[in-house]
Amino acid sequence: MDDIRFAVLGTGGIGRRTLEVATHRDGLTPVAACDRNGVAIDHGGLDVDELLDATEGNIASGPADDPDATDGSSDLRSDGGAAAGGVKQHGEQAGIVASDQGRETETPIDDVIAEADEIDAVLMALPNLEHDFIPRVAQRFADADYEGVLIDVLKRSRVIGMLEDREERLVDAGITFVCGAGATPGLLTGAAALAAQSFVEIESVEIWWGVGLKSGYEDNRGTVREDIAHLDGYDIESAREMSEAEIEALIDEHDGRLEFDDMEHADDVLLERAGVCDAEDVTVGGILDVRQDEKPTTTTVSVTGRTFDGETGTNTFQLDDATSMEANVNGPAIGYLKAAVLRNRAGDYGVYGPAELMPTF
Amino acid sequence: MDDIRFAVLGTGGIGRRTLEVATHRDGLTPVAACDRNGVAIDHGGLDVDELLDATEGNIASGPADDPDATDGSSDLRSDGGAAAGGVKQHGEQAGIVASDQGRETETPIDDVIAEADEIDAVLMALPNLEHDFIPRVAQRFADADYEGVLIDVLKRSRVIGMLEDREERLVDAGITFVCGAGATPGLLTGAAALAAQSFVEIESVEIWWGVGLKSGYEDNRGTVREDIAHLDGYDIESAREMSEAEIEALIDEHDGRLEFDDMEHADDVLLERAGVCDAEDVTVGGILDVRQDEKPTTTTVSVTGRTFDGETGTNTFQLDDATSMEANVNGPAIGYLKAAVLRNRAGDYGVYGPAELMPTF
Repeated sequence: MDDIRFAVLGTGGIGRRTLEVATHRDGLTPVAACDRNGVAIDHGGLDVDELLDATEGNIASGPADDPDATDGSSDLRSDGGAAAGGVKQHGEQAGIVASDQGRETETPIDDVIAEADEIDAVLMALPNLEHDFIPRVAQRFADADYEGVLIDVLKRSRVIGMLEDREERLVDAGITFVCGAGATPGLLTGAAALAAQSFVEIESVEIWWGVGLKSGYEDNRGTVREDIAHLDGYDIESAREMSEAEIEALIDEHDGRLEFDDMEHADDVLLERAGVCDAEDVTVGGILDVRQDEKPTTTTVSVTGRTFDGETGTNTFQLDDATSMEANVNGPAIGYLKAAVLRNRAGDYGVYGPAELMPTF
Repeated sequence: MDDIRFAVLGTGGIGRRTLEVATHRDGLTPVAACDRNGVAIDHGGLDVDELLDATEGNIASGPADDPDATDGSSDLRSDGGAAAGGVKQHGEQAGIVASDQGRETETPIDDVIAEADEIDAVLMALPNLEHDFIPRVAQRFADADYEGVLIDVLKRSRVIGMLEDREERLVDAGITFVCGAGATPGLLTGAAALAAQSFVEIESVEIWWGVGLKSGYEDNRGTVREDIAHLDGYDIESAREMSEAEIEALIDEHDGRLEFDDMEHADDVLLERAGVCDAEDVTVGGILDVRQDEKPTTTTVSVTGRTFDGETGTNTFQLDDATSMEANVNGPAIGYLKAAVLRNRAGDYGVYGPAELMPTF
């Protein structure tokens, strides 16, 4: 495969870890990264170490105590100025602008779009925004006639339909969009689709994840906030409006350990799209522990079905407890990105889910 | 997806079970099937039940006690007359010609090729033949300018290179070839590639299978013969030359239970092709028990690697003991066939392995 030049929108935990993991994989050159008020572009390849050093720590993707920092501010989003996913909250040189490679901008996403002719793939690492934020960003790339790959690690089921609504426009531009290409949805969705191949009828797909996030907590506040939205009594709006202090109080209340059952997770619609089963046959849950790095439970995909010869069985896929959330999100994200570039170069455009595409190395 | 019209070359266990499993899946119309001396073609769709009833039982794909029945007869193969994979050994109306839909022919593969304009995909269910048999059959389809999918369930590593040697010719014709698309190589190879995504470096891939084949034994003698070739002291030539009585004696000697270690199995080169790891890091083994239907051991794929953040772990994929070899071979074969048709229709030609393609439903 020829070299892939890629950009990352958002430099929270997922965006930065993707840059880092990419340095371990062949054929990938990071050429652009942005956050809410900064952009770094170098078509010869960004210096990832310097960028990571400059943006590490003090990351928050929620409104925190500063309402102006709200990722979801509609003004910022509607004028194209909000590439978010977390920036340094303190000091004038917050986020990417703290890097020697970064510069301040009011229109970070537009700045990346302006360079898109020389970009093969764009990872949208933009957690915790309104449901239609990623579809609308995709639309903006399409409107600029970007020909290439867009990929996200979104979680919410309802976003998929919004992408499908825009599929014709994406195809016209020449975009191959992979949605939900992290761990779950992503790696585990793909594993479910594979495990299902033994069967002619699927009874249930159960995805159960464990995440220990003590040392990664600061870096993944956006993801934690998004997870809270899945708890009983919360939704994405109320979770977004919580202050950091309120989130801490909630976590204290649960002794650092949040259990999620029957989450609205896009695995369901992504498996239905792939023809594996009905969305309602898919359940997703898990346990997040922010006070230990050990996983509180083993991440397991269980696919139960009936074989052509009338037997019922359960195939399983398990991730070693030693593999971190970051390893399981960012490795697959890059694998799906590379697979999508192959598709895109073959002229295969449209919206794909992780159950339709084998990630590559 | 529009309806897929497919053919099966060989009506041994794998060929017939593929026809059967296909009746449980959407969008598949079997239009042609052949064996060594018969062919059945109906572009409106074969009557699978009738064909299975007519060809069930008394299947042997080896030379048995009748040297004329040798699948590997070079005369038959070189003149294009050998679509094998097992036929009824007894009676004048042996194999497909026993079906109302079948007719006798000296050139079964050529008869299918002659109709290939109206065929989207061809499953080559031809076990236990010389290594270059499948590549040469592929070549014949290419020479006839067949535009469509070819898929096999081959096992031997060295065949992959022979296919790669012909890749240019296949691409010119418009052929998308998926090699090794059964259980292993196939489903388990794909699972290994997926499980590897958590890691930036793979230490080892271990594929360990269990097959209980009591009731399926008669129907899968070709596969058993091919497995014997993997035992210490045997190779594909000596296994092919064994009489049925010699095979029975060998099985008796092992009380019906054959254990295989470090088999030459194409999973290794297929994973290397996909960039997952070096072929030498892959080991394949398993236990075949022909005297019970219960699996003698649980089929498991273990992928051990190092994550970007320095941890070492092992991700695993396990098939339920209740899923039969047939379910795990033929379900994935159809899934890969369908995925390959999508690729082919998108104009994506060439040779693919199961670690490069997500099978679809």
